[in-house]
Amino acid sequence: MNRQELISLIRQRHSFLCVGLDADPAKMPSHLQGQPDAVYQFNKAVIDATIDYAVAYKPNIAFYESMGVEGLIQLRKTMQYLHGLDKKAFTIADAKRGDIGNTSQHYAKAFLDPQGEYNFDAITVAPYMGEDSVLPFMSRPDKWVILLALTSNKGASDFQFLRDTTGKALFEHVLERAVQWGTPDNLMFVVGATKASMLSRVRAIAPHSFLLVPGVGAQGGSLDEVCRYGLTADCGLLVNSSRGIIYASNGPDFAERAADEARKLQIQMAQYI
Amino acid sequence: MNRQELISLIRQRHSFLCVGLDADPAKMPSHLQGQPDAVYQFNKAVIDATIDYAVAYKPNIAFYESMGVEGLIQLRKTMQYLHGLDKKAFTIADAKRGDIGNTSQHYAKAFLDPQGEYNFDAITVAPYMGEDSVLPFMSRPDKWVILLALTSNKGASDFQFLRDTTGKALFEHVLERAVQWGTPDNLMFVVGATKASMLSRVRAIAPHSFLLVPGVGAQGGSLDEVCRYGLTADCGLLVNSSRGIIYASNGPDFAERAADEARKLQIQMAQYI
Repeated sequence: MNRQELISLIRQRHSFLCVGLDADPAKMPSHLQGQPDAVYQFNKAVIDATIDYAVAYKPNIAFYESMGVEGLIQLRKTMQYLHGLDKKAFTIADAKRGDIGNTSQHYAKAFLDPQGEYNFDAITVAPYMGEDSVLPFMSRPDKWVILLALTSNKGASDFQFLRDTTGKALFEHVLERAVQWGTPDNLMFVVGATKASMLSRVRAIAPHSFLLVPGVGAQGGSLDEVCRYGLTADCGLLVNSSRGIIYASNGPDFAERAADEARKLQIQMAQYI
Repeated sequence: MNRQELISLIRQRHSFLCVGLDADPAKMPSHLQGQPDAVYQFNKAVIDATIDYAVAYKPNIAFYESMGVEGLIQLRKTMQYLHGLDKKAFTIADAKRGDIGNTSQHYAKAFLDPQGEYNFDAITVAPYMGEDSVLPFMSRPDKWVILLALTSNKGASDFQFLRDTTGKALFEHVLERAVQWGTPDNLMFVVGATKASMLSRVRAIAPHSFLLVPGVGAQGGSLDEVCRYGLTADCGLLVNSSRGIIYASNGPDFAERAADEARKLQIQMAQYI
């Protein structure tokens, strides 16, 4: 999906919500547990219930890998289902990969190839290994890197705020370098909602880039703050919620409750578009 | 495998060689291509041919993921084979994972769980997200984090050498913090052989930690330099070679040629133990 299509989708649904598909068998409704294709059935129900309120879905790859080969089969089925829907959505492999160029090419093939098993629109990438670890993910038309800049977790402060002699923080270096590697048409950044006030510094370096913002809701970030500092004329934001939506209930009503929570966020988001 | 067992293995085989199992179907011998379980058969032949000269095997997970679900099945078979051998080896998932704590727990489960599909001894981890992204990989007995410190690729210079006001580089910050998170019994570091002279600075911060050193051979690093600056009383090094061994030939003699190349390195290594 290209930038214009993403922006159109956001305007059409009055939403910039990304639903995190962190499918954890231990947290899924008891009536699904132990059923064949339980994870796929869970994801399918969540997608059907939320797609009118969301523009993106973000499976967290760790949750599927931790189920072994069977988990990847469930991921493949989920992606096939998303690709087959009339209602489109932007798809993000939350994989946080990154390795020497030759290896990153293999990760890019795994997650982004149109002929591959998943065919995601985008993948999250870690910046520590620099340019040649990132570029291979940007070589396909209409495919995106979402590079970690400022994350929402406690450990973010261990390295991301280290400052050089000019007072510039590591995350600012990452942004400055990366905007030379890609463009707002193939490069987004992860910026945690728990650091919303930092968004103005992110916008100073990357004024037009889309930002994927985790941490609203369960992790304590505020949608209002994120919009105040992060919104652009093209929206420029994808705000993610995972647990707050998909585990709103662990009873048979989980999909309805997921829809309720997604709708609440969509109604808030509509004010800003 | 714990530290003492690893050191014993190194002394027993007079080797600190790690063989990188970067199984790329396009580079495999033509007589194997298209055969059932070709990747597993290739790995098995390489392992049988090299295990007298090597102490560790390091499948690069990207190469398996890029083959989709089938690739992970080949990886599982390879790991089952390694676990079933009388001759032991240290096993490393070269995965470069790292995410918020809850997610890292899932990656740790995927790769390190004794009851899981792979049961690796160690996993490579990226440091950008800080402490809570790393700790979940160190919670299992005799399992290891191998944290990226100084990588062997060109892009390493983009961020790893950024200096703070005191002149300390990012990779040194990573080392200093990380030695507080783990111990030489559950934490190693990746330090590229192409930066061998930097090893003395690594050893100043992490004098007893094992270092996983890629980049000898194909990437131009020198074993002699690596040993001069990196060797400890317990050896403290695992030096990796991938392409130079496993693709020494793409004919029917690939396993014999892999053995030749591994033996050459082992003979050089024996001088240092």
